[in-house]
Amino acid sequence: MKLSNVSCLLLLILSPWFLLCTHAGDSIPAERSTHIIHMDKSFMPKGFTSSHHWYSSIVDFTTKTSDDQLSVSQHLYSYDNALDGFSAVLSKDELESLKKVPGFVSSYPDRVVKLDTTHTTEFLGLNHATGLWPASHYGKDVIIGMIDTGVWPESKSFKDDGMTAIPSRWKGKCEKGQDFSSSLCNKKLIGARYFNKGVLAANPGIKLSMNSARDTEGHGTHTTSTSGGNYVEDVSYFGYAKGTARGVAPRARVAMYKVIWDEGRYASDVLAGMDKAVADGVDVISISMGFDGVPLYMDPIAIASFGAMKKGVLVSASAGNEGPFPGLLHNGIPWVMTVAAGSIDRWFAGTLTLGNGLTITGWSMFPASAVVNQIPLLYNKTLSACIEPQLLSKAPDYIIICDNTSSIYFQSSALAIANRQQAAIFISDDLEIFEFNTFTFPGVVIGTKDGPTVIKYVESISANSTATASMNFQQTFVGTRPAPAVSSYTSRGPAPSFPGILKPDVMGPGTLVLAAWNPTLPTSGINSLQLSSDYNIISGTSMSCPHASGIAALLKGAHPEWSPAAIRSAMMTTANPDDNSLRAIRDAGQGFEIATPLAMGSGQVRPNRALDPGLVYDATTRDYVNLICSMGFTKNQTLTITRSKHYNCSSPSSDLNYPSFIALYNFTTTKHYRSFERVVTNVGAGAATYKAKVTAPLGSTVKVSPDTLVFRKPHEKKKYSMTIDYSGDKNGTVAFGSIIWIEENGEHTVRSPIVVSPVINVW
Amino acid sequence: MKLSNVSCLLLLILSPWFLLCTHAGDSIPAERSTHIIHMDKSFMPKGFTSSHHWYSSIVDFTTKTSDDQLSVSQHLYSYDNALDGFSAVLSKDELESLKKVPGFVSSYPDRVVKLDTTHTTEFLGLNHATGLWPASHYGKDVIIGMIDTGVWPESKSFKDDGMTAIPSRWKGKCEKGQDFSSSLCNKKLIGARYFNKGVLAANPGIKLSMNSARDTEGHGTHTTSTSGGNYVEDVSYFGYAKGTARGVAPRARVAMYKVIWDEGRYASDVLAGMDKAVADGVDVISISMGFDGVPLYMDPIAIASFGAMKKGVLVSASAGNEGPFPGLLHNGIPWVMTVAAGSIDRWFAGTLTLGNGLTITGWSMFPASAVVNQIPLLYNKTLSACIEPQLLSKAPDYIIICDNTSSIYFQSSALAIANRQQAAIFISDDLEIFEFNTFTFPGVVIGTKDGPTVIKYVESISANSTATASMNFQQTFVGTRPAPAVSSYTSRGPAPSFPGILKPDVMGPGTLVLAAWNPTLPTSGINSLQLSSDYNIISGTSMSCPHASGIAALLKGAHPEWSPAAIRSAMMTTANPDDNSLRAIRDAGQGFEIATPLAMGSGQVRPNRALDPGLVYDATTRDYVNLICSMGFTKNQTLTITRSKHYNCSSPSSDLNYPSFIALYNFTTTKHYRSFERVVTNVGAGAATYKAKVTAPLGSTVKVSPDTLVFRKPHEKKKYSMTIDYSGDKNGTVAFGSIIWIEENGEHTVRSPIVVSPVINVW
Repeated sequence: MKLSNVSCLLLLILSPWFLLCTHAGDSIPAERSTHIIHMDKSFMPKGFTSSHHWYSSIVDFTTKTSDDQLSVSQHLYSYDNALDGFSAVLSKDELESLKKVPGFVSSYPDRVVKLDTTHTTEFLGLNHATGLWPASHYGKDVIIGMIDTGVWPESKSFKDDGMTAIPSRWKGKCEKGQDFSSSLCNKKLIGARYFNKGVLAANPGIKLSMNSARDTEGHGTHTTSTSGGNYVEDVSYFGYAKGTARGVAPRARVAMYKVIWDEGRYASDVLAGMDKAVADGVDVISISMGFDGVPLYMDPIAIASFGAMKKGVLVSASAGNEGPFPGLLHNGIPWVMTVAAGSIDRWFAGTLTLGNGLTITGWSMFPASAVVNQIPLLYNKTLSACIEPQLLSKAPDYIIICDNTSSIYFQSSALAIANRQQAAIFISDDLEIFEFNTFTFPGVVIGTKDGPTVIKYVESISANSTATASMNFQQTFVGTRPAPAVSSYTSRGPAPSFPGILKPDVMGPGTLVLAAWNPTLPTSGINSLQLSSDYNIISGTSMSCPHASGIAALLKGAHPEWSPAAIRSAMMTTANPDDNSLRAIRDAGQGFEIATPLAMGSGQVRPNRALDPGLVYDATTRDYVNLICSMGFTKNQTLTITRSKHYNCSSPSSDLNYPSFIALYNFTTTKHYRSFERVVTNVGAGAATYKAKVTAPLGSTVKVSPDTLVFRKPHEKKKYSMTIDYSGDKNGTVAFGSIIWIEENGEHTVRSPIVVSPVINVW
Repeated sequence: MKLSNVSCLLLLILSPWFLLCTHAGDSIPAERSTHIIHMDKSFMPKGFTSSHHWYSSIVDFTTKTSDDQLSVSQHLYSYDNALDGFSAVLSKDELESLKKVPGFVSSYPDRVVKLDTTHTTEFLGLNHATGLWPASHYGKDVIIGMIDTGVWPESKSFKDDGMTAIPSRWKGKCEKGQDFSSSLCNKKLIGARYFNKGVLAANPGIKLSMNSARDTEGHGTHTTSTSGGNYVEDVSYFGYAKGTARGVAPRARVAMYKVIWDEGRYASDVLAGMDKAVADGVDVISISMGFDGVPLYMDPIAIASFGAMKKGVLVSASAGNEGPFPGLLHNGIPWVMTVAAGSIDRWFAGTLTLGNGLTITGWSMFPASAVVNQIPLLYNKTLSACIEPQLLSKAPDYIIICDNTSSIYFQSSALAIANRQQAAIFISDDLEIFEFNTFTFPGVVIGTKDGPTVIKYVESISANSTATASMNFQQTFVGTRPAPAVSSYTSRGPAPSFPGILKPDVMGPGTLVLAAWNPTLPTSGINSLQLSSDYNIISGTSMSCPHASGIAALLKGAHPEWSPAAIRSAMMTTANPDDNSLRAIRDAGQGFEIATPLAMGSGQVRPNRALDPGLVYDATTRDYVNLICSMGFTKNQTLTITRSKHYNCSSPSSDLNYPSFIALYNFTTTKHYRSFERVVTNVGAGAATYKAKVTAPLGSTVKVSPDTLVFRKPHEKKKYSMTIDYSGDKNGTVAFGSIIWIEENGEHTVRSPIVVSPVINVW
């Protein structure tokens, strides 16, 4: 909430994302609107050659029987792969008559998707010598489907240098469209499709500004290059983060399914994109967006990802940018991998050197090599708020010192209008500065800890001398500690769509991530001058999600036989709860207190460890059905997700075989008791014995039985149960611990977080 | 003249070169001053172990006998290699008593050097497959000594990746100094020395801002990386000229002799640098500076380069930036290679796209990726001069169209102060725009040919519509024609120090050349914000000279046995008088009329052809002495240059065996007759027959005898004579032609320009 507001504000200055702010509320004309209709295909009459014909005839029937003479082709999409059903523009009456058609399962109105964009980077330990990269051949046989804003196909990140022939199983297409010829795809970007029927239906008569898979925003280009971009040398963001850009799976194939438009974002298009991605044969779907406030049976991502999961396709989705407030996470879908965002071990510096020789390494992302060399310093209380352009324009053209009394974005604007001072020293501890790339005035941010040093220096200079300073920009330091920290904006669990599974699952690099961009858009600025670049540094769970998707793709390449649940389990049980200072990861949104699993899930993804997790917690479609059956949904709500009556609700179970544990309480001090059953599969190379090491959440007692698991051979499964006696409090305190299965005389450790959390209101 | 004025003006806005303007006039205190003393070493008394001791004793003697009690160590340098003598700070009386010392040859006051910096690039045809690069192993055994402003040793251009061990004959040193440790040299930058005694003596009590070989200007870093810089990938100047930077001789060794200081530039230091370079064992000296208004016997470069030539060291020097006016060329020294500057086949573009779809590829070097997208156009006669900030600040924030009524530098300043318009379309044909890098306001320059198209478009738009335009920056096009053209600033012959030899000798790329720079200095700007970069694009004969020096180094690597005269001859007789449109090279300083050899010498250097020139015009020290003996100098003036009585004036000759011809007349229509004798040496692989093809200058008759030269074996020499009957006119018309020796049944052509020119006043 906090961040998205700021985001809109910033964007007025220089970012393309104002589009997201202004268009997010586009509404569908009142009388007719798009609906998603889920159907049971077993009701399809024999005469139809395809479900598409059947669905079309239903739409024809319902619209022709209505009074509306204007309705022409109102059937938008048929969905066959990730879900069964279609979308159509219908009046209320038409929808009602459609509900009577045999085979109708459920329907809900098309809705607006929310995009997870703020700002990020990476330090995941992938290397050429050992681990997941070489083991997976860098993902060369894996296809990642990106559900996003389109792609900028000319980006160097999508060149296919070094790529082998496209896997023959691929059924995708490079769709021709506006400014997009079908020859723009290659052995790296193997497909590009676009889905515009929903947006067109919701905005009758509109002309799409770019009616093709071309990315007019940059978001899809960024996420795609993050998950599977090729190697591109000597990339930077205006001199910052200089180096080789590459995706997490640099040899994987990527395919774009554009479902997000400048003119609006609709569930019907998202569903169509996911549906087609599954049909085309992607291995992983990466979706950096989510729907807020909808139950699972009305959440297109939940629905389509169930279909994807059934076909062995892992869906990796962003947790959202609604942090640090609890319980606002989206995509908290039990059959999806939900990804939180953390910081990177990197610092973008502006170095401040005072006339007395003292050097302070501040923060700066000023996008040019400004020459600020031994310029007099200006500090006085009349000016130091740095918010009155009138005052500033009459002050000397020095380096001005700005106090911590206003945001540096306002101060930068005022200084730009004044057009007088050469540079600024901003004194600020505002966290947002370190999560956003906006930096339009030449200057350096120093903390309130260092501010007095500079002010004292200015005040110590005698009348016949001058306090001066110099600045250096475009410096990047890596290896900074502690990192990662949970980013303030990342949405926190429990998941309002189903709090009974601990979400998010894992955390990935999300803050100030460099990746490819639409080179025609502003990505930074100097005063009021807007600047563009081929690569952009932005932050959000939109950026951490494709990191996790890339890792999932690598794991799929290394272990083609693993189910989506097994891949996710491997990533979760090997995730790191500690940062690079070897202490518990901190939460930037909570004053750098120790982060809870409700913020970061099992911890920071560790791809090389995930390659060889020892044990996995697997789950079948049946297991997910049993879970859904425990959620109190109606038969048709359930069927909307599960699609097939083949999966009935004969054995509902709220206890999914999940590699994490959450025990909920309701703001009282009542004693609670919860037991969990788990089955772990030995995916190690041979026999192995594991012993449980439990750290109980504060105020709880955790028991594990048995506490030793002896595997005689690979693929063997073992059960265990865990019970937790716990009680909550009226303040809603969150307590957490873990269970780690430690291999005896071996190297595997299999860790699951255990959380005791107050319940939240379910969507 | 024209350009150096402009240069000073520009620099007030953003360039480091204002230093050159402001310091150039530093003067020596009146009572004592530095003198260069030439000595005859044969007079050295037996008791001295070295000439240094002898010179020191002379200084001690003369200063102790004077009345001045303050004089301490006034002996600055002893010179032993390129010249014999020393420099010392002396009063008038001291100098007079010194003149009586046995062995005294001549003396002259230390003087201020002029630096040749304006702006350039390259398209010389060097390639990895064939020709001079592979034949010379990229210059790996050759050492280039740079006489310049110092070097920025940390530049990537001076990394020694791929360099082999330093040749064992090298005697140079990496001198420690301020901010310069002796470990900063490596296998690429093999030496760095600095010579400050002259500047310190001329400015008593001064503290040098950088007392070491470190470059505080950028000029020396630029020239050094141009001649012998290593390969550096992905270099650009604010996005322009993107690509791999490399020196002409990328495997040659470079050594810096810093003789130019922020605080002043003195002949004594220049002499010391050249002297030491010869002692250290350099093969080529590159000197991008010159002395104006001095006769050869008082020109330190003429003197030191004679010593260098005697030791087989080729000296390549810049012609100066005093064009396009005739006869102001410096370094017109018969034993030096004098290098003129031309343009490159490259265009730095700003693309202008009008709302009606029309695209005009204009010129821009605006140093950032400004986003100018469909912004309204503003054109009205009140504003279109674009010089009144007050007016501009009240006009709309559109793209303003600026008429061709003022320089775009003034217009850019006014727009920056107004701080209102988003961008500008500058209508201008001003040549300087295409020779300088200054471009501080977002905009595009279009010619007066295209201006009316844009204005018509604005005026054609009806009241209820808006004329708009978009701009794209940072575009580079290569292969533009015609190129090269002679640059307007390059100094023109005849040489005022000795007009009897046609100067300049050759032309190299000089305008808008990209090379390494001091990264702490401003190299561009946005409005009033100054920006720095690791690489800079600048123009001047300072930039063309190190191109020629690099080629000379490659030729030395390929033909170690060739004399400096042979190397120069190979470069001259293979130079191209035509541009890349296969027509005669044009002169940008003369309205793009056909360029004369007084502007470009024999033409544009062609390194691969120079590798195998067929014939060379060689010259020995004796030949140069005979020439000097014809110049009417006194005995001691002659000895100042020649140093040794071993070379007497027994056979003076004004007819040096030079690969070009100049016939002078004195602004009358008198008939003239001149004959030349030449000896050519067969440097081809075997027997060869050459026939002369003569194109006589207009109004002349040229005869060659014999007109066929038959060589039976390699290294054979043949004489020929050429006579020219010509007459001048009162207007001082310059006429020119050529003699080409064309190999029969072979590929060699050996071309020499023939010029008929009015005489000029000799310095």
